Amino acid sequence: MRPYEIIHAKRDGQDLAPEVIRELVEGYTRGEVPDYQMAAFCMAVFFRGMSDAETEALTRAMLHSGDVLDLSDIPGVKVDKHSTGGVGDKVTLALAPLAAACGVVVPMISGRGLGHTGGTLDKLEAIPGFRVSLSVEEYRRTVAQVGACLMGQTARLAPADKMLYALRDVTATVESIPLISASILSKKLAEGIDALVLDVKVGNGAFMKNPEEARRLAATLCAIGRRMGKRVTALLTAMDQPLGRAIGNALEVEEAVELLRGGGPDDLRQVTVELTAEMLLLAGRATGIADARQKVVQAIDDRSGLAKLREIVAAQGGDPAAIDDVSRLPHGAGTREVPARTAGVVQAIDAEALGLAAMALGAGRSRIEDRIDPGVGILVQKKIGDRVAVGEPLCVLHHGAAGAESPEDVAARVLRAYRIGPEPVSAMPLVLERVAEPIAPAEVVA
Amino acid sequence: MRPYEIIHAKRDGQDLAPEVIRELVEGYTRGEVPDYQMAAFCMAVFFRGMSDAETEALTRAMLHSGDVLDLSDIPGVKVDKHSTGGVGDKVTLALAPLAAACGVVVPMISGRGLGHTGGTLDKLEAIPGFRVSLSVEEYRRTVAQVGACLMGQTARLAPADKMLYALRDVTATVESIPLISASILSKKLAEGIDALVLDVKVGNGAFMKNPEEARRLAATLCAIGRRMGKRVTALLTAMDQPLGRAIGNALEVEEAVELLRGGGPDDLRQVTVELTAEMLLLAGRATGIADARQKVVQAIDDRSGLAKLREIVAAQGGDPAAIDDVSRLPHGAGTREVPARTAGVVQAIDAEALGLAAMALGAGRSRIEDRIDPGVGILVQKKIGDRVAVGEPLCVLHHGAAGAESPEDVAARVLRAYRIGPEPVSAMPLVLERVAEPIAPAEVVA
Repeated sequence: MRPYEIIHAKRDGQDLAPEVIRELVEGYTRGEVPDYQMAAFCMAVFFRGMSDAETEALTRAMLHSGDVLDLSDIPGVKVDKHSTGGVGDKVTLALAPLAAACGVVVPMISGRGLGHTGGTLDKLEAIPGFRVSLSVEEYRRTVAQVGACLMGQTARLAPADKMLYALRDVTATVESIPLISASILSKKLAEGIDALVLDVKVGNGAFMKNPEEARRLAATLCAIGRRMGKRVTALLTAMDQPLGRAIGNALEVEEAVELLRGGGPDDLRQVTVELTAEMLLLAGRATGIADARQKVVQAIDDRSGLAKLREIVAAQGGDPAAIDDVSRLPHGAGTREVPARTAGVVQAIDAEALGLAAMALGAGRSRIEDRIDPGVGILVQKKIGDRVAVGEPLCVLHHGAAGAESPEDVAARVLRAYRIGPEPVSAMPLVLERVAEPIAPAEVVA
Repeated sequence: MRPYEIIHAKRDGQDLAPEVIRELVEGYTRGEVPDYQMAAFCMAVFFRGMSDAETEALTRAMLHSGDVLDLSDIPGVKVDKHSTGGVGDKVTLALAPLAAACGVVVPMISGRGLGHTGGTLDKLEAIPGFRVSLSVEEYRRTVAQVGACLMGQTARLAPADKMLYALRDVTATVESIPLISASILSKKLAEGIDALVLDVKVGNGAFMKNPEEARRLAATLCAIGRRMGKRVTALLTAMDQPLGRAIGNALEVEEAVELLRGGGPDDLRQVTVELTAEMLLLAGRATGIADARQKVVQAIDDRSGLAKLREIVAAQGGDPAAIDDVSRLPHGAGTREVPARTAGVVQAIDAEALGLAAMALGAGRSRIEDRIDPGVGILVQKKIGDRVAVGEPLCVLHHGAAGAESPEDVAARVLRAYRIGPEPVSAMPLVLERVAEPIAPAEVVA
């Protein structure tokens, strides 16, 4: 089938054969299918959807558009975690060392922040010296020796996904469950993993605003993972407000370190423990979820997670002393409180607006070429359900010397992001749901 | 709004403001909005449609993307006819001189054939010397002096339509009523017309396969024309088989000349008379449809239409003697009959397949750069409802010396296009429906 016929068939709601989808993706990756045809195709998929068989074919085609790493010579079950993205989501920074401390092999290829959510790579780079650009050999060696490695995507992994993602981003075709699923899974399976835990965020700060959509995405991800011989577990977690208190790169590293020291905000700790426990389960490192949770908590309490983070940082060229002495992390030039103007209970927080406010301070980028200020960000002081008096700080801004939006303007953004009222309220449950595709143990590649 | 937001809004079913549509089209024409965004937009329009207000804004933006000819200094009501395209559709060749002979001013900018339907320009160029590439000044002068002129589109008329049409053609976004309507009307209104008759073809040889779709297109075209201050009348006419008997450029000219001499196939004559009569009505040249028809028949009977065709041909550099002596038109190298293999009644003819068969002989082009052989084509001998004996010719091929597909292969195509069975059948009515938007006479620019 020519690209025209493929677009036409999808537009008219026909199911596409796997080889047809493969041809299209291969043609696009080779530059033979132009962007305008792929854009029309993506919009047709947006409206018509894809069957699981089609989504699987798309995922496979994107996965095999580049190198697929083979880590099978490294002993142990390789498990990664992927989050659909939220504000203040620094879970990976604590989860990777905790899982590795519990014996899970954690190969992680992460992305940079764009828009209102931060990126793990940017957070890691707030640690002085930390290198995220590794060769495949360095990556493989670090995974084997340390049990975890966190690096940036290379041009040779799932190049079709990079091209497609950039196209979808400018053609309003991002919000399609089959396209999202193929994008996530093709990238993640190229890392050489055996299993994957998905953190599907739900709420105003997430990509999926309501639980039904999030559930559909989670179900598709699990089903497609299953069809590709990988175990996938998904948790739907709350993103109706920032996770933890820190938004901004060095501030989030600091908060993750607190967690590994046994402290840190409760919500962050709970979500991190749950997701890490799921990784242990998938890796066969626990007899059940209660046992898995207990082992993760143990790795916090005995500081083996913290020790593992030091190891990872050292292995990737970073300064491990910055983990113990966070004053070695970059800091903003100054701070400014954002005091409440009305008294009451925090009814709601627009997490996306807070993410954008942190971005406006220089913590994120609106264009791919923007530079990030690792020291700036926001520390959230009041969360949903908290009582607040007039003049009490809702947030503290950590701002830079100059350049980005003024602290006053950002403070105004923060005030607009808060809704304060008289009624007592509580935030949504942290873990809304668990979605897992049953798979026979024999099928798991260990 | 940025193009991204415009696509997003249309995708989500929002109505776009006229200025937003104008911005998008202007940006696209200037090359600032890339093809991939426009392709995604067109696909979103395919699924979401457009209100009449949006379609009007799109039409206006495309119309004003280039020059809009002003023929207001030429006295009389300027009326054009546009056909959505069919096989053997040589109506224009007789209609333009007939309408002009009846006092209608007929400025016509036509296209070339691509795919299974022929193009008026290619047919005209079968007349030795006929020039379709005229300057705007020559066009204007010919319209003023002769009362009709038929020329090719210039690069400066509705350039947005040219760009958009080429894009839609390769992104499976052609079949969208608002996009079709804006394309037709922007091109036609750029000619400087006051009113327009539309021949919306229905059937297997047409773009619109069923009457409901055709009716929706006709209604939209009339409504948008009305909103732009132009009177538009549409007839839904049959395209369940070729119109008349001739398919191929010189053969079609010959058949149109026969009609103007009082002969020619009945179906061609009836459709031509009806469409021309509608032009007379729009131009105020008749008191009612019966009067209009009678005037057109009169122009056939008194040969004033034929005389007008000679005038047009002479004015555009062609050999007027070829009108009276059709042996001066180009001819194929030879002929070959396609005899029926079974006896019975012609149940159905795949008009599109016959159009493609004529193309295979060299009468049309599959790529824009292909050369046409003006002398080749097909003369249809048996039409729907005709009785046929074994060995009787269904068609006669007029083929070239070499180069295109062999007459044997084309004969096989013709046989496959015919369905012969025992039952008596009749073709669909020639004129299925008339759609017109009422307009107050004062609003007609005369």
